[in-house]
Amino acid sequence: MTITFDDRDIAGHAPSAAVLDLRKRYADDIGVRPVAADVTTADMLLDGIPAIDVRTPGVRDDGVLLWVHGGAYVAGFARAAVGLAGGIARGARIRAASVEYRLAPEHPFPAPLDDVLTAYRALLHEGVPVDRIAFGGESAGGGLVLSALVALRDAGEPLPAAAVVLSPWTDLSLSGGSIATKASADPVLSEAALRPDALDYLAGCDARDPRISTAFADLTGLPPLAVHVGSHEVLLDDAVRLAARAAEADVQVELTVYPREHHGFEHGEMADASSRGSLHAAGEFLRRQLDR
Amino acid sequence: MTITFDDRDIAGHAPSAAVLDLRKRYADDIGVRPVAADVTTADMLLDGIPAIDVRTPGVRDDGVLLWVHGGAYVAGFARAAVGLAGGIARGARIRAASVEYRLAPEHPFPAPLDDVLTAYRALLHEGVPVDRIAFGGESAGGGLVLSALVALRDAGEPLPAAAVVLSPWTDLSLSGGSIATKASADPVLSEAALRPDALDYLAGCDARDPRISTAFADLTGLPPLAVHVGSHEVLLDDAVRLAARAAEADVQVELTVYPREHHGFEHGEMADASSRGSLHAAGEFLRRQLDR
Repeated sequence: MTITFDDRDIAGHAPSAAVLDLRKRYADDIGVRPVAADVTTADMLLDGIPAIDVRTPGVRDDGVLLWVHGGAYVAGFARAAVGLAGGIARGARIRAASVEYRLAPEHPFPAPLDDVLTAYRALLHEGVPVDRIAFGGESAGGGLVLSALVALRDAGEPLPAAAVVLSPWTDLSLSGGSIATKASADPVLSEAALRPDALDYLAGCDARDPRISTAFADLTGLPPLAVHVGSHEVLLDDAVRLAARAAEADVQVELTVYPREHHGFEHGEMADASSRGSLHAAGEFLRRQLDR
Repeated sequence: MTITFDDRDIAGHAPSAAVLDLRKRYADDIGVRPVAADVTTADMLLDGIPAIDVRTPGVRDDGVLLWVHGGAYVAGFARAAVGLAGGIARGARIRAASVEYRLAPEHPFPAPLDDVLTAYRALLHEGVPVDRIAFGGESAGGGLVLSALVALRDAGEPLPAAAVVLSPWTDLSLSGGSIATKASADPVLSEAALRPDALDYLAGCDARDPRISTAFADLTGLPPLAVHVGSHEVLLDDAVRLAARAAEADVQVELTVYPREHHGFEHGEMADASSRGSLHAAGEFLRRQLDR
């Protein structure tokens, strides 16, 4: 399944050939990985934002993991993240809601962030207790999770109980040392691939704007964070610097580095030991925070 | 119990009044915290290095957590770490050996490190399988653990299965940003207190020597590391930079930051929730690595 944008207002420019190619790769490959047989899904709307309700057997439905998929802010779709969100929510013993947020370049910042915030507020309006909500996201989705936490903190709105971010993209200026030092080790991402996607999302905003690039944000007041990353990623330093910023701001943070894993290694419950380990650890982390 | 140095060769200079005061504080206060009632101890020698055998009920005696106590390289003693080493070894389901290494200024670098290495090699000679040995240490002891791992790696000797370091002192040049930014938040340590201790241990060596200050070391080839630290520590950046160096070098590393905790918060099984949480997490981390 791919999402179409026909029914939403187009504020940015049309996607490039590279973006269309990435979307096609999500539709044909990245986004259609196998999902555990006991995961059930249903389409839903969260105050108008499409989302997929994801459940595994025995979870409590009073808690929700709001999941934000990856795709460099320009690609990906909610269903592509069902395996990842379901695997982590299974460990946390709650359901998940994978959000279909708008994408750049048609919908640059702040549209994707606004959709995540709208979906979160809809869960609160539905009566989900705020201390039973967790955020989670991968890659650009991890960046959006952190942007959402900073936006809610700045607005004085209630914050979820915890968040997990997997290989988050937290610096759209691509200034991390690993952009260069891990270039030859990273088989998935590169500065050349990421820079046009960053420009599509930024749409003229400063790449170091802390609302967008949370590697530069004051993270004071954020809930407990788990940060997972592989050591063979150009985005390694995005995770490391995020953890350092969180520590500096007295935020509870757990950074786990998986040696020689590449971007997206956490994807899917059916994958290798590192992937299962990451999902298990992320689920356990959320369960500990939600059960307090 | 305090150790006396009468029976060991004195290579450095005599301790300052500040060092003697710190040793007295260990003897009267820091080093005599309560230990869980079911922990049993016995004195032993590891190829001539005094150590305390620490056991909790039900642990397997085929595995050993080699523990290196803290005290800024100039103070502390093996018995002071029994609660900490026992609490973590309990979770790892192995016994612990708390090492009585020589201290600066009487015995500067590399004497303390040599004692830790001698104790480790003695365990191997006794027939303890290398994949059932873990290293652990706190503060300067964490620094010694990391120095020992780098020394063993450089010498091509077998490496233990894993290591945990609690608030490790990894930069004797005190160049971390948190030396200043956390100065007012840290009720325990300060640049003024640490610098003379560093000079005592260095005895003329470069404070940025990577054999001593592993924040500057290439950590390639080290076993999985767990790093715990409080966010109210001037040594926060020693932990964060260590984790970053490990990640850069493709080492499996887990960094956990405990918000608003100060140096030494992990001490003792009888303490608060963060302390118990840190000990539990460290023990679980080691158990996962040792049971592979």
